[in-house]
Amino acid sequence: MFIGAQVSLYPMTSDFVGVIETGLEGLSPYREKLRIETDDMSTLMVGAPEPLLDAIRDLFAAAARRPEHVTMHVTLSRGCPGEPDDPSCRCETLTEAQHLPLATRQTRALEAVAAAPETGVTIDVQFSLYVLGQDGHMDEIYGCIDFLKSSGTFLKAKNFCTRLRGDAGAVFETLRQAFLRFGPAEGHVTIDLTASANSPSLS
Amino acid sequence: MFIGAQVSLYPMTSDFVGVIETGLEGLSPYREKLRIETDDMSTLMVGAPEPLLDAIRDLFAAAARRPEHVTMHVTLSRGCPGEPDDPSCRCETLTEAQHLPLATRQTRALEAVAAAPETGVTIDVQFSLYVLGQDGHMDEIYGCIDFLKSSGTFLKAKNFCTRLRGDAGAVFETLRQAFLRFGPAEGHVTIDLTASANSPSLS
Repeated sequence: MFIGAQVSLYPMTSDFVGVIETGLEGLSPYREKLRIETDDMSTLMVGAPEPLLDAIRDLFAAAARRPEHVTMHVTLSRGCPGEPDDPSCRCETLTEAQHLPLATRQTRALEAVAAAPETGVTIDVQFSLYVLGQDGHMDEIYGCIDFLKSSGTFLKAKNFCTRLRGDAGAVFETLRQAFLRFGPAEGHVTIDLTASANSPSLS
Repeated sequence: MFIGAQVSLYPMTSDFVGVIETGLEGLSPYREKLRIETDDMSTLMVGAPEPLLDAIRDLFAAAARRPEHVTMHVTLSRGCPGEPDDPSCRCETLTEAQHLPLATRQTRALEAVAAAPETGVTIDVQFSLYVLGQDGHMDEIYGCIDFLKSSGTFLKAKNFCTRLRGDAGAVFETLRQAFLRFGPAEGHVTIDLTASANSPSLS
Protein backbone atom coordinates (compact mmCIF):
# COMPACT_ATOMS: atom_id res chain seq x y z
CA MET A 1 0.00 0.00 0.00
CA PHE A 2 1.16 3.49 -0.86
CA ILE A 3 -0.60 6.43 0.82
CA GLY A 4 0.12 10.09 0.37
CA ALA A 5 -0.95 13.50 -0.77
CA GLN A 6 0.05 16.39 -2.98
CA VAL A 7 -0.61 19.54 -0.94
CA SER A 8 -0.61 23.22 -2.02
CA LEU A 9 -1.31 26.23 0.21
CA TYR A 10 -2.69 29.39 -1.46
CA PRO A 11 -2.71 32.57 0.66
CA MET A 12 -4.68 35.39 -0.97
CA THR A 13 -2.23 38.08 0.12
CA SER A 14 0.90 39.71 -1.26
CA ASP A 15 2.65 38.29 1.83
CA PHE A 16 1.90 34.75 0.67
CA VAL A 17 5.41 33.60 1.54
CA GLY A 18 4.86 34.67 5.16
CA VAL A 19 1.60 32.73 5.42
CA ILE A 20 3.19 29.64 3.87
CA GLU A 21 6.03 29.85 6.40
CA THR A 22 3.46 30.03 9.22
CA GLY A 23 1.78 26.93 7.80
CA LEU A 24 5.08 25.08 7.62
CA GLU A 25 5.55 25.65 11.36
CA GLY A 26 2.37 23.60 11.87
CA LEU A 27 3.89 20.86 9.74
CA SER A 28 7.16 20.63 11.71
CA PRO A 29 6.11 17.99 14.28
CA TYR A 30 5.35 15.52 11.48
CA ARG A 31 8.60 15.72 9.52
CA GLU A 32 9.97 12.59 11.22
CA LYS A 33 6.89 10.51 10.45
CA LEU A 34 6.33 11.46 6.81
CA ARG A 35 8.36 11.65 3.65
CA ILE A 36 8.00 15.28 2.54
CA GLU A 37 9.22 16.69 -0.81
CA THR A 38 8.38 20.14 -2.19
CA ASP A 39 8.55 21.47 -5.75
CA ASP A 40 7.20 24.67 -7.29
CA MET A 41 3.58 23.44 -7.42
CA SER A 42 2.95 21.21 -4.43
CA THR A 43 4.35 19.31 -1.49
CA LEU A 44 4.32 15.52 -1.56
CA MET A 45 3.65 13.86 1.80
CA VAL A 46 3.86 10.07 2.07
CA GLY A 47 2.99 8.04 5.17
CA ALA A 48 0.28 6.47 7.30
CA PRO A 49 -3.10 8.25 7.40
CA GLU A 50 -2.79 9.15 11.11
CA PRO A 51 0.22 11.50 10.82
CA LEU A 52 -0.66 12.37 7.20
CA LEU A 53 -4.09 13.88 7.88
CA ASP A 54 -2.93 15.38 11.19
CA ALA A 55 -0.08 17.09 9.34
CA ILE A 56 -2.35 18.50 6.62
CA ARG A 57 -4.83 19.68 9.27
CA ASP A 58 -2.16 21.43 11.35
CA LEU A 59 -0.51 22.98 8.29
CA PHE A 60 -3.82 24.54 7.26
CA ALA A 61 -4.96 25.43 10.79
CA ALA A 62 -1.68 27.29 11.45
CA ALA A 63 -2.10 29.33 8.26
CA ALA A 64 -5.80 29.92 8.97
CA ARG A 65 -5.09 31.33 12.44
CA ARG A 66 -3.70 34.38 10.65
CA PRO A 67 -6.26 36.91 9.41
CA GLU A 68 -5.61 36.51 5.67
CA HIS A 69 -7.88 34.56 3.33
CA VAL A 70 -6.13 31.26 2.66
CA THR A 71 -7.06 28.14 0.70
CA MET A 72 -5.43 24.74 0.27
CA HIS A 73 -5.72 22.05 -2.36
CA VAL A 74 -4.98 18.41 -1.55
CA THR A 75 -4.96 15.32 -3.75
CA LEU A 76 -5.10 12.33 -1.39
CA SER A 77 -4.43 8.81 -2.70
CA ARG A 78 -4.26 5.29 -1.31
CA GLY A 79 -3.61 2.04 -3.12
CA CYS A 80 -2.73 3.49 -6.53
CA PRO A 81 -1.64 0.46 -8.62
CA GLY A 82 1.12 2.56 -10.19
CA GLU A 83 2.85 3.23 -6.86
CA PRO A 84 5.21 0.89 -4.95
CA ASP A 85 4.33 -0.69 -1.61
CA ASP A 86 5.63 1.38 1.30
CA PRO A 87 5.70 -0.13 4.83
CA SER A 88 5.52 3.34 6.42
CA CYS A 89 1.96 3.69 5.07
CA ARG A 90 0.58 0.69 7.02
CA CYS A 91 -2.81 1.52 8.55
CA GLU A 92 -4.84 -0.57 11.02
CA THR A 93 -8.07 1.27 10.25
CA LEU A 94 -7.82 0.07 6.66
CA THR A 95 -7.03 -3.53 7.66
CA GLU A 96 -9.99 -3.52 10.03
CA ALA A 97 -12.34 -1.90 7.50
CA GLN A 98 -11.82 -4.67 4.99
CA HIS A 99 -14.00 -7.09 6.93
CA LEU A 100 -16.72 -4.80 8.23
CA PRO A 101 -20.16 -4.21 6.67
CA LEU A 102 -20.99 -0.69 5.50
CA ALA A 103 -23.22 0.13 8.50
CA THR A 104 -20.47 -0.75 10.99
CA ARG A 105 -17.93 1.31 9.06
CA GLN A 106 -20.33 4.26 9.17
CA THR A 107 -20.69 3.90 12.96
CA ARG A 108 -16.92 3.69 13.52
CA ALA A 109 -16.44 6.74 11.31
CA LEU A 110 -18.95 8.78 13.34
CA GLU A 111 -17.25 7.73 16.61
CA ALA A 112 -13.90 8.91 15.27
CA VAL A 113 -15.30 12.32 14.28
CA ALA A 114 -16.95 12.73 17.71
CA ALA A 115 -13.57 12.04 19.35
CA ALA A 116 -11.63 14.50 17.17
CA PRO A 117 -9.56 17.18 18.94
CA GLU A 118 -10.74 20.78 18.73
CA THR A 119 -8.35 23.24 17.07
CA GLY A 120 -10.40 26.42 17.58
CA VAL A 121 -10.16 27.18 13.85
CA THR A 122 -13.33 27.07 11.74
CA ILE A 123 -12.81 26.08 8.12
CA ASP A 124 -14.75 25.32 4.96
CA VAL A 125 -13.99 22.30 2.82
CA GLN A 126 -15.34 20.88 -0.40
CA PHE A 127 -14.22 17.49 -1.64
CA SER A 128 -14.87 14.56 -3.93
CA LEU A 129 -14.21 10.92 -3.03
CA TYR A 130 -13.27 8.60 -5.90
CA VAL A 131 -13.40 4.81 -5.58
CA LEU A 132 -11.49 3.41 -8.56
CA GLY A 133 -11.08 0.14 -10.36
CA GLN A 134 -14.32 -1.61 -9.48
CA ASP A 135 -17.89 -1.86 -10.62
CA GLY A 136 -20.57 -0.46 -8.33
CA HIS A 137 -18.38 2.35 -7.01
CA MET A 138 -21.41 4.54 -6.34
CA ASP A 139 -22.68 2.22 -3.56
CA GLU A 140 -19.64 3.11 -1.48
CA ILE A 141 -20.00 6.79 -2.44
CA TYR A 142 -23.64 6.86 -1.30
CA GLY A 143 -22.66 5.04 1.91
CA CYS A 144 -20.03 7.68 2.51
CA ILE A 145 -22.51 10.50 1.83
CA ASP A 146 -24.85 9.02 4.48
CA PHE A 147 -21.96 9.12 6.95
CA LEU A 148 -21.12 12.71 5.98
CA LYS A 149 -24.69 13.88 6.52
CA SER A 150 -24.58 12.56 10.11
CA SER A 151 -21.04 13.73 10.83
CA GLY A 152 -21.85 17.17 12.22
CA THR A 153 -19.56 18.77 9.63
CA PHE A 154 -21.87 18.44 6.61
CA LEU A 155 -22.90 21.76 5.06
CA LYS A 156 -24.47 20.91 1.69
CA ALA A 157 -24.24 18.78 -1.43
CA LYS A 158 -22.95 20.40 -4.60
CA ASN A 159 -22.48 19.14 -8.14
CA PHE A 160 -19.44 16.83 -8.16
CA CYS A 161 -18.55 17.42 -4.51
CA THR A 162 -19.67 17.82 -0.89
CA ARG A 163 -19.28 20.88 1.33
CA LEU A 164 -18.18 20.55 4.96
CA ARG A 165 -17.86 23.29 7.59
CA GLY A 166 -16.66 23.18 11.17
CA ASP A 167 -13.66 23.05 13.44
CA ALA A 168 -10.57 21.89 11.55
CA GLY A 169 -10.28 18.95 13.99
CA ALA A 170 -13.70 17.51 13.19
CA VAL A 171 -13.51 18.39 9.49
CA PHE A 172 -10.18 16.65 8.88
CA GLU A 173 -11.30 13.63 10.94
CA THR A 174 -14.39 13.46 8.71
CA LEU A 175 -12.10 13.52 5.67
CA ARG A 176 -9.82 10.82 7.10
CA GLN A 177 -12.79 8.56 7.84
CA ALA A 178 -14.24 9.11 4.35
CA PHE A 179 -10.83 8.27 2.89
CA LEU A 180 -10.28 5.09 4.94
CA ARG A 181 -13.68 3.56 5.63
CA PHE A 182 -15.24 3.63 2.15
CA GLY A 183 -14.09 1.79 -0.94
CA PRO A 184 -12.24 -1.53 -0.64
CA ALA A 185 -9.40 -1.59 1.90
CA GLU A 186 -6.94 -2.83 -0.72
CA GLY A 187 -8.46 -0.69 -3.48
CA HIS A 188 -7.50 2.56 -5.14
CA VAL A 189 -9.26 5.49 -3.48
CA THR A 190 -8.56 9.20 -3.93
CA ILE A 191 -9.89 12.49 -2.57
CA ASP A 192 -9.82 15.85 -4.39
CA LEU A 193 -10.09 18.41 -1.58
CA THR A 194 -10.18 22.20 -1.27
CA ALA A 195 -10.10 23.98 2.11
CA SER A 196 -10.81 27.66 2.73
CA ALA A 197 -10.59 30.01 5.71
CA ASN A 198 -11.18 33.72 6.30
CA SER A 199 -12.96 34.18 2.98
CA PRO A 200 -14.44 37.67 2.51
CA SER A 201 -17.27 36.13 0.45
CA LEU A 202 -18.28 33.51 3.01
CA SER A 203 -21.94 32.65 2.47
CA MET B 1 -24.68 12.89 -19.92
CA PHE B 2 -23.85 15.65 -17.46
CA ILE B 3 -20.55 17.51 -17.94
CA GLY B 4 -19.19 20.33 -15.87
CA ALA B 5 -16.60 21.70 -13.51
CA GLN B 6 -16.14 23.36 -10.17
CA VAL B 7 -13.58 26.13 -10.71
CA SER B 8 -11.72 28.30 -8.18
CA LEU B 9 -9.20 31.03 -8.97
CA TYR B 10 -6.56 31.84 -6.32
CA PRO B 11 -4.50 35.02 -6.85
CA MET B 12 -1.56 35.28 -4.43
CA THR B 13 -1.97 39.01 -3.91
CA SER B 14 -3.84 41.30 -1.55
CA ASP B 15 -5.63 42.57 -4.68
CA PHE B 16 -7.10 39.13 -5.25
CA VAL B 17 -10.52 40.59 -6.06
CA GLY B 18 -8.97 42.61 -8.90
CA VAL B 19 -7.31 39.54 -10.41
CA ILE B 20 -10.53 37.54 -10.14
CA GLU B 21 -12.42 40.34 -11.93
CA THR B 22 -9.81 40.26 -14.72
CA GLY B 23 -10.29 36.51 -15.01
CA LEU B 24 -14.06 36.92 -15.20
CA GLU B 25 -13.65 39.19 -18.23
CA GLY B 26 -12.06 36.21 -20.00
CA LEU B 27 -15.11 34.16 -19.07
CA SER B 28 -17.67 36.64 -20.47
CA PRO B 29 -17.90 35.28 -24.06
CA TYR B 30 -19.00 31.89 -22.71
CA ARG B 31 -21.84 32.96 -20.43
CA GLU B 32 -24.44 32.21 -23.09
CA LYS B 33 -23.16 28.68 -23.73
CA LEU B 34 -22.67 27.49 -20.17
CA ARG B 35 -24.68 27.39 -16.97
CA ILE B 36 -22.54 29.30 -14.47
CA GLU B 37 -23.24 29.54 -10.73
CA THR B 38 -20.85 30.95 -8.12
CA ASP B 39 -20.77 30.47 -4.36
CA ASP B 40 -18.12 31.38 -1.78
CA MET B 41 -15.82 28.46 -2.67
CA SER B 42 -16.10 27.79 -6.39
CA THR B 43 -17.90 28.46 -9.65
CA LEU B 44 -19.95 25.69 -11.21
CA MET B 45 -19.84 25.58 -15.02
CA VAL B 46 -22.07 23.10 -16.87
CA GLY B 47 -22.02 22.50 -20.63
CA ALA B 48 -20.35 20.82 -23.57
CA PRO B 49 -16.57 20.28 -23.37
CA GLU B 50 -15.83 22.70 -26.25
CA PRO B 51 -17.06 25.89 -24.56
CA LEU B 52 -16.35 24.47 -21.08
CA LEU B 53 -12.59 23.97 -21.51
CA ASP B 54 -12.28 27.11 -23.65
CA ALA B 55 -13.95 29.10 -20.87
CA ILE B 56 -11.69 27.69 -18.17
CA ARG B 57 -8.62 28.34 -20.35
CA ASP B 58 -9.58 31.94 -21.09
CA LEU B 59 -10.51 32.63 -17.46
CA PHE B 60 -7.08 31.50 -16.32
CA ALA B 61 -5.16 33.04 -19.25
CA ALA B 62 -6.77 36.43 -18.59
CA ALA B 63 -5.74 36.30 -14.92
CA ALA B 64 -2.27 35.00 -15.80
CA ARG B 65 -1.59 37.90 -18.21
CA ARG B 66 -1.34 40.07 -15.10
CA PRO B 67 2.00 39.95 -13.27
CA GLU B 68 0.74 38.42 -10.01
CA HIS B 69 1.22 34.76 -9.07
CA VAL B 70 -2.12 33.06 -9.64
CA THR B 71 -3.34 29.46 -9.37
CA MET B 72 -6.60 27.74 -10.21
CA HIS B 73 -8.20 24.53 -9.06
CA VAL B 74 -10.70 22.67 -11.26
CA THR B 75 -12.71 19.52 -10.62
CA LEU B 76 -13.92 18.31 -14.03
CA SER B 77 -16.57 15.59 -14.28
CA ARG B 78 -18.45 13.77 -17.02
CA GLY B 79 -21.01 11.01 -16.73
CA CYS B 80 -21.41 11.06 -12.94
CA PRO B 81 -24.26 8.60 -12.22
CA GLY B 82 -25.61 10.94 -9.54
CA GLU B 83 -26.22 13.82 -11.97
CA PRO B 84 -29.19 14.26 -14.36
CA ASP B 85 -28.87 14.05 -18.16
CA ASP B 86 -28.39 17.51 -19.70
CA PRO B 87 -28.76 17.97 -23.49
CA SER B 88 -26.52 21.07 -23.43
CA CYS B 89 -23.57 18.77 -22.56
CA ARG B 90 -23.80 16.71 -25.77
CA CYS B 91 -20.34 16.11 -27.24
CA GLU B 92 -19.49 14.58 -30.62
CA THR B 93 -15.93 13.78 -29.61
CA LEU B 94 -17.29 11.51 -26.88
CA THR B 95 -19.78 9.81 -29.20
CA GLU B 96 -17.01 9.21 -31.73
CA ALA B 97 -14.51 7.99 -29.12
CA GLN B 98 -16.83 5.22 -28.01
CA HIS B 99 -16.09 3.12 -31.10
CA LEU B 100 -12.40 3.81 -31.63
CA PRO B 101 -9.47 1.68 -30.45
CA LEU B 102 -7.01 3.24 -28.01
CA ALA B 103 -4.29 3.90 -30.64
CA THR B 104 -6.70 5.86 -32.85
CA ARG B 105 -7.94 7.89 -29.89
CA GLN B 106 -4.31 8.74 -29.04
CA THR B 107 -3.69 9.91 -32.63
CA ARG B 108 -6.82 12.08 -32.70
CA ALA B 109 -5.87 13.59 -29.35
CA LEU B 110 -2.39 14.52 -30.62
CA GLU B 111 -3.90 16.12 -33.75
CA ALA B 112 -6.20 18.23 -31.60
CA VAL B 113 -3.33 19.47 -29.44
CA ALA B 114 -1.26 20.33 -32.54
CA ALA B 115 -4.19 22.40 -33.82
CA ALA B 116 -4.77 24.29 -30.55
CA PRO B 117 -4.75 28.10 -30.70
CA GLU B 118 -1.83 29.94 -29.11
CA THR B 119 -2.69 32.30 -26.26
CA GLY B 120 0.81 33.68 -25.62
CA VAL B 121 0.51 32.74 -21.92
CA THR B 122 2.78 30.01 -20.54
CA ILE B 123 1.30 28.04 -17.66
CA ASP B 124 2.04 25.06 -15.43
CA VAL B 125 -0.53 22.40 -14.72
CA GLN B 126 -0.65 19.26 -12.64
CA PHE B 127 -3.59 16.91 -12.86
CA SER B 128 -4.98 13.45 -12.16
CA LEU B 129 -7.40 11.60 -14.44
CA TYR B 130 -9.85 9.22 -12.76
CA VAL B 131 -11.78 6.57 -14.70
CA LEU B 132 -14.53 5.34 -12.38
CA GLY B 133 -16.91 2.46 -12.15
CA GLN B 134 -15.08 -0.20 -14.14
CA ASP B 135 -12.42 -2.83 -13.71
CA GLY B 136 -9.15 -2.32 -15.54
CA HIS B 137 -9.24 1.46 -15.17
CA MET B 138 -5.44 1.63 -15.25
CA ASP B 139 -5.28 0.49 -18.91
CA GLU B 140 -7.01 3.69 -19.96
CA ILE B 141 -4.82 5.71 -17.57
CA TYR B 142 -1.62 4.25 -19.04
CA GLY B 143 -2.98 4.87 -22.55
CA CYS B 144 -3.62 8.47 -21.58
CA ILE B 145 -0.12 8.83 -20.11
CA ASP B 146 1.36 7.63 -23.43
CA PHE B 147 -0.61 10.36 -25.19
CA LEU B 148 0.52 12.97 -22.64
CA LYS B 149 4.19 12.08 -23.13
CA SER B 150 3.87 12.75 -26.88
CA SER B 151 1.67 15.85 -26.53
CA GLY B 152 4.44 18.46 -26.40
CA THR B 153 3.06 19.75 -23.07
CA PHE B 154 4.36 16.92 -20.85
CA LEU B 155 6.81 18.09 -18.18
CA LYS B 156 7.17 15.17 -15.75
CA ALA B 157 5.40 12.43 -13.87
CA LYS B 158 4.80 12.93 -10.15
CA ASN B 159 3.24 10.77 -7.49
CA PHE B 160 -0.56 10.77 -8.02
CA CYS B 161 -0.46 13.25 -10.91
CA THR B 162 1.20 14.47 -14.12
CA ARG B 163 2.85 17.83 -14.75
CA LEU B 164 2.26 19.77 -17.96
CA ARG B 165 3.86 23.03 -19.09
CA GLY B 166 3.30 25.17 -22.15
CA ASP B 167 1.07 27.69 -23.82
CA ALA B 168 -2.38 27.74 -22.22
CA GLY B 169 -3.89 26.83 -25.61
CA ALA B 170 -1.95 23.59 -25.99
CA VAL B 171 -2.15 22.73 -22.29
CA PHE B 172 -5.93 23.05 -22.05
CA GLU B 173 -6.38 21.16 -25.34
CA THR B 174 -4.23 18.39 -23.84
CA LEU B 175 -6.51 18.36 -20.80
CA ARG B 176 -9.68 18.31 -22.91
CA GLN B 177 -8.37 15.38 -24.95
CA ALA B 178 -7.36 13.48 -21.82
CA PHE B 179 -10.83 14.11 -20.40
CA LEU B 180 -12.74 13.02 -23.52
CA ARG B 181 -10.68 10.34 -25.27
CA PHE B 182 -9.84 8.04 -22.36
CA GLY B 183 -12.22 6.02 -20.23
CA PRO B 184 -15.52 4.80 -21.69
CA ALA B 185 -17.56 7.42 -23.57
CA GLU B 186 -20.62 6.74 -21.42
CA GLY B 187 -18.59 6.25 -18.25
CA HIS B 188 -17.81 8.40 -15.23
CA VAL B 189 -14.52 10.24 -15.69
CA THR B 190 -13.13 13.08 -13.59
CA ILE B 191 -10.04 15.29 -13.57
CA ASP B 192 -8.51 16.95 -10.51
CA LEU B 193 -6.49 19.84 -11.93
CA THR B 194 -4.30 22.66 -10.60
CA ALA B 195 -2.92 25.42 -12.83
CA SER B 196 -0.22 27.94 -11.88
CA ALA B 197 1.28 31.03 -13.52
CA ASN B 198 3.88 33.62 -12.53
CA SER B 199 5.15 31.55 -9.61
CA PRO B 200 8.20 33.04 -7.91
CA SER B 201 9.43 29.50 -7.11
CA LEU B 202 9.18 28.17 -10.66
CA SER B 203 11.62 25.29 -11.02
